[in-house]
Amino acid sequence: MSALRSAVASTGRRARYADIFPWVTSPFIVGAPMRVMAGPNLALAVSRAGGLGFMGPGAKAQDTAVDLAKVKEILESQCTNDEKLFAAFQSTKRLPVGVGFQLWNGDLPSATSAVQEYQPCAAWLFAPRNGQEELDEWAVKLREASPGIQIWIQVGTIREGAEAASSAHRPDVLVIQGAEAGGHGRAKDGLGLIALLPEAADRLRESGIPVIAAGGIADGRGVAAALSLGASGIALGTRFLASNEARISKGYQNEVVRATEAAHSTARTHLYNHLRGTFGWPEHWSPRGITNMSWQDHIAGVPFDELKQRHDVAQESGDKGWGPEGRLATYAGAGIGLIHSVEPAGVLVQRLQNEAKEILSGLAH
Amino acid sequence: MSALRSAVASTGRRARYADIFPWVTSPFIVGAPMRVMAGPNLALAVSRAGGLGFMGPGAKAQDTAVDLAKVKEILESQCTNDEKLFAAFQSTKRLPVGVGFQLWNGDLPSATSAVQEYQPCAAWLFAPRNGQEELDEWAVKLREASPGIQIWIQVGTIREGAEAASSAHRPDVLVIQGAEAGGHGRAKDGLGLIALLPEAADRLRESGIPVIAAGGIADGRGVAAALSLGASGIALGTRFLASNEARISKGYQNEVVRATEAAHSTARTHLYNHLRGTFGWPEHWSPRGITNMSWQDHIAGVPFDELKQRHDVAQESGDKGWGPEGRLATYAGAGIGLIHSVEPAGVLVQRLQNEAKEILSGLAH
Repeated sequence: MSALRSAVASTGRRARYADIFPWVTSPFIVGAPMRVMAGPNLALAVSRAGGLGFMGPGAKAQDTAVDLAKVKEILESQCTNDEKLFAAFQSTKRLPVGVGFQLWNGDLPSATSAVQEYQPCAAWLFAPRNGQEELDEWAVKLREASPGIQIWIQVGTIREGAEAASSAHRPDVLVIQGAEAGGHGRAKDGLGLIALLPEAADRLRESGIPVIAAGGIADGRGVAAALSLGASGIALGTRFLASNEARISKGYQNEVVRATEAAHSTARTHLYNHLRGTFGWPEHWSPRGITNMSWQDHIAGVPFDELKQRHDVAQESGDKGWGPEGRLATYAGAGIGLIHSVEPAGVLVQRLQNEAKEILSGLAH
Repeated sequence: MSALRSAVASTGRRARYADIFPWVTSPFIVGAPMRVMAGPNLALAVSRAGGLGFMGPGAKAQDTAVDLAKVKEILESQCTNDEKLFAAFQSTKRLPVGVGFQLWNGDLPSATSAVQEYQPCAAWLFAPRNGQEELDEWAVKLREASPGIQIWIQVGTIREGAEAASSAHRPDVLVIQGAEAGGHGRAKDGLGLIALLPEAADRLRESGIPVIAAGGIADGRGVAAALSLGASGIALGTRFLASNEARISKGYQNEVVRATEAAHSTARTHLYNHLRGTFGWPEHWSPRGITNMSWQDHIAGVPFDELKQRHDVAQESGDKGWGPEGRLATYAGAGIGLIHSVEPAGVLVQRLQNEAKEILSGLAH
């Protein structure tokens, strides 16, 4: 029976993670590489708590090297030999965090040079302009620059996953992102994880590539659900935006805690990208975020130039730029209604694990 | 911790189901009331296997009474005293199946008269034109006609659920339908179950009303996931379309088995309603179905009158009217990629239960 095979297989995969990332504990919790907001402190806090933290791309391509240097500095100054994480770093010489790259406007030479110099344990590739060909190019160059680096590819459809799995430069891990995800996801052909994940797991089973679930998960219930659906690990983004270590404005973070009922309070739209001056995203993707006055006015027909002017004024107002009366981009996932407080990322990782374990054990008996 | 409380609470709720529906086994599997396609044979097969089967509304309002009479006839002619289900029927005088009513074009007098005469154990209410007021009117009249009947209300948003829970005529059970569902669901404010269900469970906790998950679930993985998210039971529609007992054309059923990758092969649209001559659905809802030539031609700009003509010709062609080259309505959910065979409904119920139990027990250890 496919469901059972999948559940059994995922157990084997967790064991493999522990070989590659010897500090991780179960269930495998991953901090997603949110652009700018997932920096050195967040990524390292997730890893130190037994997960795997990724840093997002920075505002500039060179920021990746700066952030990796910072990870190294914190590790060497704050961690001690009795931390499993530090021991792994010392024996492998690999930084126990991953880095994310947004390919369509990424810079491959900076990426390879940062990875070569600092040797992060994994790279998470996302949003190529030219599909698998571009993913392959990055995978090849990053593996050349850092043999043994784990290549993770994030997809939002089964066909992207199947294409990546059949490539000669196939990834070590596939992240399956459901339609509930915040930030950029599939614009038109996304699907909810509850249907997408098991079908993707079935389709990818022969490849042996493990599957990580992403999108709309914010507590132990979602973690337990994703494991049930066949995931061997769970990536969370929005939940970690409401952590002490996130590199985020207070006004933005308050919104992640405040907002509920994502069906009514979020939308997928390029409006906020454009208001921020970001153009050129490939058409396959668009971002989910919490809506505010920019969106309300847009719906009401206010022309873009006027919206842009109001947006730029709001940007000068500090934390008041966010919120229902605000105008600034507030990318977030559909799990916002499950997030009620800002907490240390390490506390979150351990609670997610404990909740999931208690739920599964309660349901099994 | 809310997640844990929820998991614990749902265990208590399962115990309560066994008081009301003494033949049900765990996990609680529900056959959804698909219009016409869920008839007496399907509903009773689901209940006899330890679930609770609902019959859908018929093509005419009077069909509900005809279908209920048929359930009674099968029960009395085929079931024996040693079946828990039959014993429950004999002691309670209630039919061990439920009936579904689509309110906006339903007929309340026929419904109350059918329920009074045949005493089904539960009624599932869906799609009022006038919101909670109309749901209340149906709940009151059905409870008058059949004191003790379990009133289930299906919602697709948290605010609908909260409104129903705070009504003086609140339901006994709330079915939370995610955006992955087939047939009619929320047109614009649907959300994937993985985010919708736990937030709904949190919001409804104080009411004590148990929550059933629906939408996109087709195997034991989805059942285990929904339980993890806080559901106390799982309703499946599309999975039971591919059962021997479904009242469905072979051409339609073949499509449910054939189609995969719902993100690309299904759409939410009223086109097929209109081609079938069904107009007047309240704007909140629209149906998901497998797309075919009617949709392709519509996208390509073929006018409705021409589409209708081609549709009506296809309707004369029997089972060839369905399929990628067909033109007939093929309502189905996003779980289609998980369905690979037509099987007896009772076999499905028991496999869903066994798979879920094995997955949960495997993950707990």
